Amino acid sequence: MIFKPMAIALVHHPVLDRRGDVVTSAVTNLDIHDLARLATTYNLSRYYLVTPAVEQQTLASRIIEHWQQGAGASYNPDRCHALDCLQVVNSLDEALADWRCLTGPESLAVLTGARHENGIDYPQAGTLAAERSIMLVFGTGHGLAPEVYAPDRPCLDPVRAGQYNHLSVRTAAAIIIDRLIGECHSVLPLSS
Amino acid sequence: MIFKPMAIALVHHPVLDRRGDVVTSAVTNLDIHDLARLATTYNLSRYYLVTPAVEQQTLASRIIEHWQQGAGASYNPDRCHALDCLQVVNSLDEALADWRCLTGPESLAVLTGARHENGIDYPQAGTLAAERSIMLVFGTGHGLAPEVYAPDRPCLDPVRAGQYNHLSVRTAAAIIIDRLIGECHSVLPLSS
Repeated sequence: MIFKPMAIALVHHPVLDRRGDVVTSAVTNLDIHDLARLATTYNLSRYYLVTPAVEQQTLASRIIEHWQQGAGASYNPDRCHALDCLQVVNSLDEALADWRCLTGPESLAVLTGARHENGIDYPQAGTLAAERSIMLVFGTGHGLAPEVYAPDRPCLDPVRAGQYNHLSVRTAAAIIIDRLIGECHSVLPLSS
Repeated sequence: MIFKPMAIALVHHPVLDRRGDVVTSAVTNLDIHDLARLATTYNLSRYYLVTPAVEQQTLASRIIEHWQQGAGASYNPDRCHALDCLQVVNSLDEALADWRCLTGPESLAVLTGARHENGIDYPQAGTLAAERSIMLVFGTGHGLAPEVYAPDRPCLDPVRAGQYNHLSVRTAAAIIIDRLIGECHSVLPLSS
């Protein structure tokens, strides 16, 4: 199948910590690079880094600037190119608004998580992605806070039904994006 | 299918750097955790961390000790449990020798990489994994050095045939392990 333009969002707030409290998690250099390279490899158009914390936004901007304009740009052009899709935003609502501005009002967020039930499976998500521009949403820390879940935001089935299910957000995102797109499907770029 | 016991090896030497020189890459805290959690999620029996550098081995041992016996063990029992499968070794040959000692002389290394041609595909690798205990080998840095490739070490097809193919070893390993095992197959534990 050919999917409409697709985005990812990495949410640092609101997410849960290990005790189940709602927190703002820290931006990490590795999440920025790993997910940017993943998004670029699968031809995704946007990678929204979601954090309302100003100092975390500043940190993210410094990392991006280093690899795009600073010493990193000439040291590693592949990392520089991958960061083209990255955009720092205050909230998931802001990410979705920007994504709809780029792709149309029918675009929607598709959530991911390790614990929920009654999700949609990958064939269902593929059908959806062929019809509408989706934004896959990943939570850092111990996952997206309950307030993120809503009836108009379908949720993908958890990756593993086994007893141990504690993948990092980086490896979980890689598996989910590959299961959805893999070698069989392709993703359209944004129309210019 | 039911696969025989399976292992992974993360190689820090011999690997290539960005200029194509053979180097020893640095052990990183995140590779240790991400791949240990991945291995545990998919029921893999061993995660061999391959480095001949004594100071790097010491660093890896300190990280493991922190999460298994130190403050980390009570702080995060899931990470503690995941590290049970981790074993630091000097070389890929040592890893394979240990793996054969555990599983039998017919066990073999299956290499991974982003650049080679004439690899085996996932159905072929699955058939192999059902017959023999395989050890999936991942290279850090810019990939496994040419000296690692050998006729008796089959090599899995690269993850993506697209133009941009610069996944981190963490995300590439996640995709490869999920493609091989996914939800359809299961992996046997080591027989006690």
